[in-house]
Amino acid sequence: MLHSFQEISEIINLNLNKLQLDKKSPAGLYLPAHYTLELGGKRIRPALVLMACNMFSDEVDAAITPALGIEVFHNFTLLHDDIMDHADIRRGQPTVHKKWNENTAILSGDVMQIIAYQLIAETPAACLKPVLDLFSTTAAEVCEGQQFDMEFEKRIDVDADEYIEMIRLKTAVLLGCSLKTGALIGGADERNAQILYDFGINIGLAFQLKDDLLDVYGDEAVFGKKIGGDILCNKHTFLLIHAKKRASGETKEKLFHYLSDTHITPNEKISGVTEIYNRLEVKKICEDAMSFYFEKAIANLKDIQIQEEKKKELLKLAQKLMHRND
Amino acid sequence: MLHSFQEISEIINLNLNKLQLDKKSPAGLYLPAHYTLELGGKRIRPALVLMACNMFSDEVDAAITPALGIEVFHNFTLLHDDIMDHADIRRGQPTVHKKWNENTAILSGDVMQIIAYQLIAETPAACLKPVLDLFSTTAAEVCEGQQFDMEFEKRIDVDADEYIEMIRLKTAVLLGCSLKTGALIGGADERNAQILYDFGINIGLAFQLKDDLLDVYGDEAVFGKKIGGDILCNKHTFLLIHAKKRASGETKEKLFHYLSDTHITPNEKISGVTEIYNRLEVKKICEDAMSFYFEKAIANLKDIQIQEEKKKELLKLAQKLMHRND
Repeated sequence: MLHSFQEISEIINLNLNKLQLDKKSPAGLYLPAHYTLELGGKRIRPALVLMACNMFSDEVDAAITPALGIEVFHNFTLLHDDIMDHADIRRGQPTVHKKWNENTAILSGDVMQIIAYQLIAETPAACLKPVLDLFSTTAAEVCEGQQFDMEFEKRIDVDADEYIEMIRLKTAVLLGCSLKTGALIGGADERNAQILYDFGINIGLAFQLKDDLLDVYGDEAVFGKKIGGDILCNKHTFLLIHAKKRASGETKEKLFHYLSDTHITPNEKISGVTEIYNRLEVKKICEDAMSFYFEKAIANLKDIQIQEEKKKELLKLAQKLMHRND
Repeated sequence: MLHSFQEISEIINLNLNKLQLDKKSPAGLYLPAHYTLELGGKRIRPALVLMACNMFSDEVDAAITPALGIEVFHNFTLLHDDIMDHADIRRGQPTVHKKWNENTAILSGDVMQIIAYQLIAETPAACLKPVLDLFSTTAAEVCEGQQFDMEFEKRIDVDADEYIEMIRLKTAVLLGCSLKTGALIGGADERNAQILYDFGINIGLAFQLKDDLLDVYGDEAVFGKKIGGDILCNKHTFLLIHAKKRASGETKEKLFHYLSDTHITPNEKISGVTEIYNRLEVKKICEDAMSFYFEKAIANLKDIQIQEEKKKELLKLAQKLMHRND
């Protein structure tokens, strides 16, 4: 039986609650980990694990614990990234290094990575080794993506290909890993499992480009964070990279002025850069790239050799993610 | 055939060199990990893995990669501990967060933990699950030990039992884990493997008490770090805990004066506190506790049901560690 996204989400939340990290000692180590998980989020990654498993197996129970492992790992990366990015707020709440301190944030993150592996290790023996290896490869790639992201902050010449490779590592591979993990546990053959991985990569890239667009063109109330955050910190998003490439003459001068002048007010900077984006039509370039990866993902899904009926929940979720406003 | 410690060390160093983390990209992520491993150290933990394996099997090849995993994990904990402890120097060289920066130290440490798991995952399939679970449990305990260590810095009422539990978690469990991992890979039964684990715990506790003693009574040139470091930072070592317990009257006043007066010179503080330790004979208490755990370890070794001949290299190493001056 094919579970709806709603049902899958309920299974995940129920089981996340059972982790009860807030009951573990020492509280100084485990409470910040519990807090990070409690901040919420869409639980997309564990949902992908279960949905992929469900495409090949009516039973999803065996995939639940590994799915939680991937969610704990994802939250660990958010916790450590927030230290590195000096981010004070996550999902409207103070980040761990703000609420506690930096040492707590480092060590609680470390133990979350271990807990993630403990949960992954509950994968059925028959596919433990491939799932474990995929998870480790992916986890290392996520670190590589974060490293590139930090290095890009200090560079002015990042090109679109480098940016796509960075977001592939930082964001997309964990979605691919989630799907392939679920597929393997569900009994998929290597070909179908790998196509689902590719689907995850393409959805992940489209997803991140959507995020870049929402940062500039989103509705603040719905998006849940301040519009223009990427613009204010000169983040080399797909939009900025293409704006820099297309700008010339007076527009180019103006753009570099906005990027370098520290006396400008935040609102002026956001509206000024947005105006340049509009003039250079980089929104369309970003939307086109997003559609390109989304279409590739849809083609991947078609390519999977199972009944079309089994694909429908994943297709629905992919479409929802592409048309989301938050 | 039983390998000598010397031979075992050569196998480990040869294979550590093959990791070649300095060849991996991005260098900004992997070079600090390589640097940390290159700082050296006695490679005790991987040696214990191979020696324990060798007690039950003539072949140690299957244990080499997991042994490296434990060494990489150990070095990861040093790297992150150095950030948390604001330590600038490790083995005579600048620490990663000093040589690079804190973000680099956090992220390189994170990827080292993943590499550790990748190496552990190369354990032969027949004992992968128990080895993996033991490793994760141990890794979490090491984090718990570090958490207690940091919490103790802010307390004045740490007692000897709490201290022993802290060093059990922070230091001893990884030695126990190393030995049990090697034993399991070598084909030991659960009883023998568990006794070797207990041997590791007892050696680890004795080892740490030895370290506490060397910090005060060691020879600086041989010890490799400054004498009195623990005294200067008011670290609740076994010596200080017992000194506080035994001190009374004028001696107590003097001890608390040394602990709280910030105008005193480092040399005055070290010689003053050492003089109190001598007067209260806490050196003997620490030596007795060390001998107590060492004897327990020797009893564990006797308890293992294999030919006495097979135990001799491990016994030799344990004795060497107890009589070391560095």
